[in-house]
Amino acid sequence: MMALSLSTAQTIVAAALAHARKANFNPLSIVVLDARSAVVAAASEDGTSLRRFEVAQGKAAGALAFGIGSRKLGEMAVERPHFLAGAAHVVGALVPVAGGVLVKDKDGAVIGAVGVSGDVSDNDEAAATAGIEAAGLTAEG
Amino acid sequence: MMALSLSTAQTIVAAALAHARKANFNPLSIVVLDARSAVVAAASEDGTSLRRFEVAQGKAAGALAFGIGSRKLGEMAVERPHFLAGAAHVVGALVPVAGGVLVKDKDGAVIGAVGVSGDVSDNDEAAATAGIEAAGLTAEG
Amino acid sequence: MMALSLSTAQTIVAAALAHARKANFNPLSIVVLDARSAVVAAASEDGTSLRRFEVAQGKAAGALAFGIGSRKLGEMAVERPHFLAGAAHVVGALVPVAGGVLVKDKDGAVIGAVGVSGDVSDNDEAAATAGIEAAGLTAEG
Amino acid sequence: MMALSLSTAQTIVAAALAHARKANFNPLSIVVLDARSAVVAAASEDGTSLRRFEVAQGKAAGALAFGIGSRKLGEMAVERPHFLAGAAHVVGALVPVAGGVLVKDKDGAVIGAVGVSGDVSDNDEAAATAGIEAAGLTAEG
Repeated sequence: MMALSLSTAQTIVAAALAHARKANFNPLSIVVLDARSAVVAAASEDGTSLRRFEVAQGKAAGALAFGIGSRKLGEMAVERPHFLAGAAHVVGALVPVAGGVLVKDKDGAVIGAVGVSGDVSDNDEAAATAGIEAAGLTAEG
Repeated sequence: MMALSLSTAQTIVAAALAHARKANFNPLSIVVLDARSAVVAAASEDGTSLRRFEVAQGKAAGALAFGIGSRKLGEMAVERPHFLAGAAHVVGALVPVAGGVLVKDKDGAVIGAVGVSGDVSDNDEAAATAGIEAAGLTAEG
Repeated sequence: MMALSLSTAQTIVAAALAHARKANFNPLSIVVLDARSAVVAAASEDGTSLRRFEVAQGKAAGALAFGIGSRKLGEMAVERPHFLAGAAHVVGALVPVAGGVLVKDKDGAVIGAVGVSGDVSDNDEAAATAGIEAAGLTAEG
Repeated sequence: MMALSLSTAQTIVAAALAHARKANFNPLSIVVLDARSAVVAAASEDGTSLRRFEVAQGKAAGALAFGIGSRKLGEMAVERPHFLAGAAHVVGALVPVAGGVLVKDKDGAVIGAVGVSGDVSDNDEAAATAGIEAAGLTAEG
């Protein structure tokens, strides 16, 4: 498994923000976690509300906790709410809506996750995906 | 962004309480938070139950966390309960029902939030709004 | 036991602040709790740092938890640190330094506590005591 | 009070990292918080241990909680360990050692804090200070 370097994380943040500004999204928080769920890089645009960072981090952390994108976690939450409620209790931070996207290397190994919050979930996810792909990596939402 | 001073917060509390007494509401807890989610002023009327303050604070804190009134958070909680459950886990204090109202200055910047609890949610929100408007500021419920 | 009314709590807050301004203390947070440890009134002066309210509340809550002023809790913390560490674990909020003062009625019954934070502990306690005495009640620091 | 913009926070991070590389420090985590204690920007260098981000954030958050640099909080922790233990209980995240530095604007208002962790505390603080000063702001360690 390759490491997710600071340089790569900063490329992801910059490209996600560029996508958001070009598409005129609301102000976003972007968080890049490595495979250990440690914060590698983060940015909150001017005007983001008080806890956007925590929500973005919770999307990415949830994706890493289960090894699936937070969009799929949201589908599981609708189908089996008791599972997600229990999981959140043992896992901690976990926001099961789109916008938490796994980062995979060319061998398909999970090397981290990107979480985005601030606009509607589909737009959050689009910004995360744009950032990951700009770094030459594979996004799984 | 202007600060939310103690003097302004005390005006908000006094006007919210005056509204509640004139309308004969149940005993209320009123909490005024600044943009940092720090308590600037608070009052709990005689007869309020044990955790009214915490509920009022949770409404205001939820509004600040997401930059929307707690009434809208409540609508989101009905539509997407898993989102609010996850958000509460990462954000902490968050009561998603009407009565947590953003305070905006004349430029539209969020300078704080007022949380009220003790009567039905619509009345709680009306008291918060009356307090904010009495201070010459804009309320967003 | 008499109740600690909102009116009395507001008298305490106003008198504590007046004392602080006359003595030129640093900006203070003042919290008045009733016998149940519920917040009755609070005020944070302009310029108080982010968590002054929580520290003030923790002083008052610690006083109520054990039925002694937070100055004495601080002495116990020096003599028996393991006791205070354990107590904090079970009790929760508890800041064992001067500035958390019990409020007693004329029969000696504990009807609440006042917590103050922002200046040195002795000054915090002096402001709390001034507030309590201005309301015709007995302070026990 | 001026806001601490993303652009300014990114300047602080870049300059703190440049200082660290020039001085050959161990790998660092850098966190920039605004006055609300919200994460504006962060970076963890390759090789940082698992919870460096949280330690850096705890230094900055402690500084904001009390309005003093985390070096001074550390001195208080040595003189009055019970105070810091209690404060940590009510405040939450709080790492009382050097490396959490207040950011002040030209009027002396606290607009945020920078936390650094990874090398010895004096070096962590030096990196934070270098970052803040590169942005034309005032550092208070």
